[in-house]
Amino acid sequence: MGRLIRERFSKDPDPFAEEFVASVEDDERLVPYDIEGSIAHARALSKAGLLNPKEAATVVRALRRIRREHEQGKWKLDATDEDVHMNVEKRLIQLAGRAGAKIHAGRSRNDQVALDLRLWTRDAIDSLLGRLSGLRKVLVRRARGTSDVICPGYTHLQRAQPVLFAHVLLSFHEMIVRDEGRLTDCRKRVDVSPLGAGALAGTSLRIDPRISAKALGLKGLFANSIDAVSDRDFAAEFVFACSLLQTHLSQIAENLILWSSSEFGFIELPDELCTSSSIMPQKKNADLVELVRAKSGRVVGDLVSLLTILKGLPAGYNRDLQETKPPLYDAAETAGASVQALTLAIKGLVVRKVVMEEAASGSEMLATDLAEYLTEKGMPFRDAHQAVARLMKRTATKGTSLADLTVAELKRASPVFEADVLSRITARESVRRRNSPGGTGISRVRQRLRQLSR
Amino acid sequence: MGRLIRERFSKDPDPFAEEFVASVEDDERLVPYDIEGSIAHARALSKAGLLNPKEAATVVRALRRIRREHEQGKWKLDATDEDVHMNVEKRLIQLAGRAGAKIHAGRSRNDQVALDLRLWTRDAIDSLLGRLSGLRKVLVRRARGTSDVICPGYTHLQRAQPVLFAHVLLSFHEMIVRDEGRLTDCRKRVDVSPLGAGALAGTSLRIDPRISAKALGLKGLFANSIDAVSDRDFAAEFVFACSLLQTHLSQIAENLILWSSSEFGFIELPDELCTSSSIMPQKKNADLVELVRAKSGRVVGDLVSLLTILKGLPAGYNRDLQETKPPLYDAAETAGASVQALTLAIKGLVVRKVVMEEAASGSEMLATDLAEYLTEKGMPFRDAHQAVARLMKRTATKGTSLADLTVAELKRASPVFEADVLSRITARESVRRRNSPGGTGISRVRQRLRQLSR
Amino acid sequence: MGRLIRERFSKDPDPFAEEFVASVEDDERLVPYDIEGSIAHARALSKAGLLNPKEAATVVRALRRIRREHEQGKWKLDATDEDVHMNVEKRLIQLAGRAGAKIHAGRSRNDQVALDLRLWTRDAIDSLLGRLSGLRKVLVRRARGTSDVICPGYTHLQRAQPVLFAHVLLSFHEMIVRDEGRLTDCRKRVDVSPLGAGALAGTSLRIDPRISAKALGLKGLFANSIDAVSDRDFAAEFVFACSLLQTHLSQIAENLILWSSSEFGFIELPDELCTSSSIMPQKKNADLVELVRAKSGRVVGDLVSLLTILKGLPAGYNRDLQETKPPLYDAAETAGASVQALTLAIKGLVVRKVVMEEAASGSEMLATDLAEYLTEKGMPFRDAHQAVARLMKRTATKGTSLADLTVAELKRASPVFEADVLSRITARESVRRRNSPGGTGISRVRQRLRQLSR
Amino acid sequence: MGRLIRERFSKDPDPFAEEFVASVEDDERLVPYDIEGSIAHARALSKAGLLNPKEAATVVRALRRIRREHEQGKWKLDATDEDVHMNVEKRLIQLAGRAGAKIHAGRSRNDQVALDLRLWTRDAIDSLLGRLSGLRKVLVRRARGTSDVICPGYTHLQRAQPVLFAHVLLSFHEMIVRDEGRLTDCRKRVDVSPLGAGALAGTSLRIDPRISAKALGLKGLFANSIDAVSDRDFAAEFVFACSLLQTHLSQIAENLILWSSSEFGFIELPDELCTSSSIMPQKKNADLVELVRAKSGRVVGDLVSLLTILKGLPAGYNRDLQETKPPLYDAAETAGASVQALTLAIKGLVVRKVVMEEAASGSEMLATDLAEYLTEKGMPFRDAHQAVARLMKRTATKGTSLADLTVAELKRASPVFEADVLSRITARESVRRRNSPGGTGISRVRQRLRQLSR
Repeated sequence: MGRLIRERFSKDPDPFAEEFVASVEDDERLVPYDIEGSIAHARALSKAGLLNPKEAATVVRALRRIRREHEQGKWKLDATDEDVHMNVEKRLIQLAGRAGAKIHAGRSRNDQVALDLRLWTRDAIDSLLGRLSGLRKVLVRRARGTSDVICPGYTHLQRAQPVLFAHVLLSFHEMIVRDEGRLTDCRKRVDVSPLGAGALAGTSLRIDPRISAKALGLKGLFANSIDAVSDRDFAAEFVFACSLLQTHLSQIAENLILWSSSEFGFIELPDELCTSSSIMPQKKNADLVELVRAKSGRVVGDLVSLLTILKGLPAGYNRDLQETKPPLYDAAETAGASVQALTLAIKGLVVRKVVMEEAASGSEMLATDLAEYLTEKGMPFRDAHQAVARLMKRTATKGTSLADLTVAELKRASPVFEADVLSRITARESVRRRNSPGGTGISRVRQRLRQLSR
Repeated sequence: MGRLIRERFSKDPDPFAEEFVASVEDDERLVPYDIEGSIAHARALSKAGLLNPKEAATVVRALRRIRREHEQGKWKLDATDEDVHMNVEKRLIQLAGRAGAKIHAGRSRNDQVALDLRLWTRDAIDSLLGRLSGLRKVLVRRARGTSDVICPGYTHLQRAQPVLFAHVLLSFHEMIVRDEGRLTDCRKRVDVSPLGAGALAGTSLRIDPRISAKALGLKGLFANSIDAVSDRDFAAEFVFACSLLQTHLSQIAENLILWSSSEFGFIELPDELCTSSSIMPQKKNADLVELVRAKSGRVVGDLVSLLTILKGLPAGYNRDLQETKPPLYDAAETAGASVQALTLAIKGLVVRKVVMEEAASGSEMLATDLAEYLTEKGMPFRDAHQAVARLMKRTATKGTSLADLTVAELKRASPVFEADVLSRITARESVRRRNSPGGTGISRVRQRLRQLSR
Repeated sequence: MGRLIRERFSKDPDPFAEEFVASVEDDERLVPYDIEGSIAHARALSKAGLLNPKEAATVVRALRRIRREHEQGKWKLDATDEDVHMNVEKRLIQLAGRAGAKIHAGRSRNDQVALDLRLWTRDAIDSLLGRLSGLRKVLVRRARGTSDVICPGYTHLQRAQPVLFAHVLLSFHEMIVRDEGRLTDCRKRVDVSPLGAGALAGTSLRIDPRISAKALGLKGLFANSIDAVSDRDFAAEFVFACSLLQTHLSQIAENLILWSSSEFGFIELPDELCTSSSIMPQKKNADLVELVRAKSGRVVGDLVSLLTILKGLPAGYNRDLQETKPPLYDAAETAGASVQALTLAIKGLVVRKVVMEEAASGSEMLATDLAEYLTEKGMPFRDAHQAVARLMKRTATKGTSLADLTVAELKRASPVFEADVLSRITARESVRRRNSPGGTGISRVRQRLRQLSR
Repeated sequence: MGRLIRERFSKDPDPFAEEFVASVEDDERLVPYDIEGSIAHARALSKAGLLNPKEAATVVRALRRIRREHEQGKWKLDATDEDVHMNVEKRLIQLAGRAGAKIHAGRSRNDQVALDLRLWTRDAIDSLLGRLSGLRKVLVRRARGTSDVICPGYTHLQRAQPVLFAHVLLSFHEMIVRDEGRLTDCRKRVDVSPLGAGALAGTSLRIDPRISAKALGLKGLFANSIDAVSDRDFAAEFVFACSLLQTHLSQIAENLILWSSSEFGFIELPDELCTSSSIMPQKKNADLVELVRAKSGRVVGDLVSLLTILKGLPAGYNRDLQETKPPLYDAAETAGASVQALTLAIKGLVVRKVVMEEAASGSEMLATDLAEYLTEKGMPFRDAHQAVARLMKRTATKGTSLADLTVAELKRASPVFEADVLSRITARESVRRRNSPGGTGISRVRQRLRQLSR
């Protein structure tokens, strides 16, 4: 519990309390950011004349050494020094002496931790954006390679209309595009320096926080010191973006799981991504993909943790904010790994074209085409829909299908039907014609793929 | 359950099932949007030659009449027609006959409901932004009126450093600014037309969805029809923005509740916003503000509902999506009312300047000023901190305070202290000097208020 | 805002605040419980001599009249009287005069609302238990009627081992049994009277709270008045029980949705529970069941609301507790309707025995049987598992199946195989033999059904 | 990914997939339970003749050796063997050879992991119950030591009526008693053996699962094998019990934080539990207690994770269930540590009796006593309430207080007042008289303390 700063107390910390309060375990990942922030702060102190040039050089050199020691595993955080900040400061004083003892002027752990977390989150966003771009590329590549494969399109998990399998893959692509948009918007609000807010009130020392912000490449600067130390919106917003992304991944995963079942049989996942059973020798399971589905629960849980922690806190820093870190770390790491897992799965999956097209060939899925045929010929759509519905009911009762009907039988259902209707009752023709913008029409999808391949 | 479209079935709906599945109760609010969308669709059908000019005019006229009938309470949604779309279509056919029966060509309830919800959400965002702007104005006005009032600044709910009360109010202002940013970013992703995606695959009719999008003033157009009908990201993102906003409101509320307590006594809420007790005649309670605090739970619950509903859904429209509506409506309405409640409370609160300044006058809050004084004189901050901490411990033991110390006593703690230190040990001087950018310094806060008043 | 009790204020309530704070809309359902509680309280007052026999009779008569007026829709709650308690008290005073004005002695709205909610929740539990018992009966009946139907058992949604369809239905039954257990345990903690706790401290009047508790048939009595008025554990626990129940229902729903798909084709839902599409005339959708799946999100959201509201509240009644009501009501009503919806669906579903048995006939699902055969003959299970896995790999490569193998080929895989193995390679034999307690063995399942039919 | 069981595959696992799928990191804690379960299973196999006595002895000896190796850190789980089960089995085969290779007969990892988690949870409950009992004892001890201290009782964080500080502490005690009740009820549903359910269908080997259940001291036995492997209700229920407990802890923490503020000043926490500030030398912060408050968010997040993961899973084991483990572990460990933290805090806090009694001495808190006085004398309570409210308003306007009133002035407010009223207007008299069952009356609280000290 910050032994360096316990002069005011008459008793040493209780060992259980010390461990309960410490945040070092998860915070090893903050070390490089804490050091980066301290180097920037040293620059601001130097400009303010609170470190002379020699002292500044000593401090920066020592901080870089701590970073190296940490990278090489020679130096680790110690719970008796409470947190990453006190650990780094203590080591800095060991290495840089009196100059090191000057580093904490005009700052507090409150603005420091806000800074560290912002720098960490900025990197986490960039890393996640990189992975999402990879996933999108794989989706586009697989869509390009399957752009002539027809499969059933579903609503309510019931076969609805034939679509291109590539169109389904590109529907996943659109989700990811929105996720990237949200992450990019969030990044703007992350990219703000809180350094210089001090404990909550700024400082009376003549330090210019714009210097450290610039050194860190942060675009914005806090406008209110009380808000700066207690604001964790950037964490909540990022974890939300991860939650919705992970929800998308759960939906993609659900499709892969369904498609890999014996009943669908649309795809097969490669052996190297599958597990077997300890008891059933025949089993091939897509555990990887099931775990991606499940991890949506994990990230939604992280989001709830964060929002519940923030609820009802009074103004100013409260230690509660420490508990916002584990869900932040967990969400970023879970989402990153899940994106990679699905990228692997989609890259490796084998498309069972014959099975898909067989499933898409059922003529009942062409009912809408018949109704649209009648509409083109001038019949109000609602009447056309009812006429075809009656036809469906009749064929269902007889156990036949639309494709078995003769023009004569169709004409009996509605005199508007003519011979040309027969050419419409195939899945390929149906897909070919759904060429409205954004539709599954073959030339539309190819056009979209060309756009995306640029 | 859509009796207009049950031709394929041999049985009437089960009455319990019909009620369970219907969504009419909460969807009265969608009526104007559904009609607006149908008018735009009529335009696209007309352009495509699927409605002739006379039919188009009849349809638009009938739709406007339905809107009027609904506004005047003469026409209401009926659960046996399942949802807003079938209700409007049925009434349209009653009023416009054969022309009305043509309206559903090239669209489906799947793209229709997505459209209605997007139009509703766009309005909900605009309305919320309007209320937030009102809250910000009240905060700035109250900050201007109290810009000389000093109060304790807190961390860990312990008195930390004196600050301007206006600086605290402006810290709330910053939260709201970020909320507005998130809502504005979200609005871009709401402002996209899904109309023309049909059930999931687009249409074979030559309808141009750009026409309806433009008629509705929607900036974007869907890129993938499967995604367009199942995307509820806009709802989730909006409800998240409401959740974080409501979390901020809960924090502001917590402060108001604390400040109104006898123990703090910093503010008083006006009688017209307070309730009394049915048993304790003396009570004056800030129920309004407590409810704002509690409603953060409500909106976080809405967000969880939405994300949990979306988890693991297979591609294409699933009826599960209907359940995303109640949390969407509830979050928007709760957040809107809560903003208004807090606006009233902040507008009406009486500031107890004397109490605040008395509370801010404790010299222990000036310990940091002393440490910064020593730092200015060249002492490393960590040493300065320890020297002052020892001083605090000593005065605490003796039961005196910093303000009681003589220069001689201070010099004994550190020879660096000189006579000029005494002028530093007042709350006003402390606040005056914290003039770093974003700090609580008097001239800084005034500068900020000038910026915000423009 | 309780105009009856605003004597201490100099201003009338603000109209927006009055509406924001009022809870009358959702609380119509509390009226009978509030009256029941008041009747019981009148009895305690009478025993304490605070109402004389005539006054007590007048009060009870008037309360019964209010109940009738409310049932008949002649009297409704009014938001300007804030809540159900002030509404009932005001009407009581109108009807019973001076005697009515005595009713609030020794109680407060704080203990009153806790009482009303407990009585409401007790009834909600009993009603839900009744519906669950109905669902279990339907499950048992359908299991009895299909106790010879074999279908694939799944793990990871991959076919694993053949099982009885009845065994799957009974696995749902077990979930419900646990839900009933949790509700029954929760009921004990609901069944406690808080009446007499007053605002928070009990009362100085000599009223015995055991009298009202007994009159209400409540088994327990509060032990601490501060706890009694702020405890909403009973609501949280009940809403959790509903959440887990609803999660079970979502799992059952997921199975019904999968089974109704063309790909599985195991069951068909009756027309009267299904909807069609406004655009696709052939569609038959199980919206009812999808909504049950989705509503798990709703109830989990209710639970999160409740817990988040309770987080961090200081001791004693806080108005935040009012916000625990909507999720409580919503969870109970959603769970009740969802149980009924699934009961209908399971009652009405048509079992496609031929399809199920065809799906279960794949010999790869008998791999475990072969491994267990080898184990019976003394081969260590791990070796048996590997031997059969190799066999599976070989048949997969050749495109044949286990059922095609001759004894000679089997012997080549392991000399332990003998001719009797052939009789083992059928789904029916596999199911017949899994007769361990709790297993899917035919006689085991029949035995279980006999137990449950008693 | 279970290399021991990959005979059916032609490719080695992908290294990323292998790590993504593995659960070894968190599962070290399951090792003793997995071994305990295997020893019990060996007994059942031996009884069934599937292990001869010598083999059984070898297996048990080897399992015990693995447990020792693990305790001593000589043997650790390895991610390439996927999970705890495959790791233990592999090591067992290394140590016990052919006998070891027999252990997996008649069981699967699906029933095994359900068993391990149940055994772990049973221990977690017992450990938590132990800590809760410790917290209750400290609460009772501190209540006994402060049973004459009067403090304000609050509603809406406004001073309401004077109460005993001991009564407040005992209100916390009541919450804990209910938490214990829920944990105990949950334990019944944990205490059930799933071993013998196999993968999902039981086994064809003649193994009696009652033998292993009995060896493990588990009271119940699964009734349906499909349910047995997929049921994680016990985890959800336990995590809910932890969530509600942690919510209680957050409320207790909130009180401690408020009471430790300068404004309340009711208590002081001991130095050894507090931290200071890196910048403000005077600060003494109750971080320990703030973290307890925050951790309620963490555990609620765990609960949401669990429920969301379970939502919509189809029947049978799905790998999603693996993700239920981290929230289960986290909730148990967070709750356990938080209970201990608060136990320390309550044990160590210093009660500032003088400050509390000064705060409780305000006569406005005695308004209810005056109203009850009038009620005793026959005035209807509602009239009495209004009379006193008018009195309060008058004194407030004049800036005096109830205690300043003369009998004459009181009589002017209501002729019912007589001289004996003056003796009622003290906090001690108020507390003394609130002697109704469960009330704060001094003799009531002492009586309760005697009950609890037994």
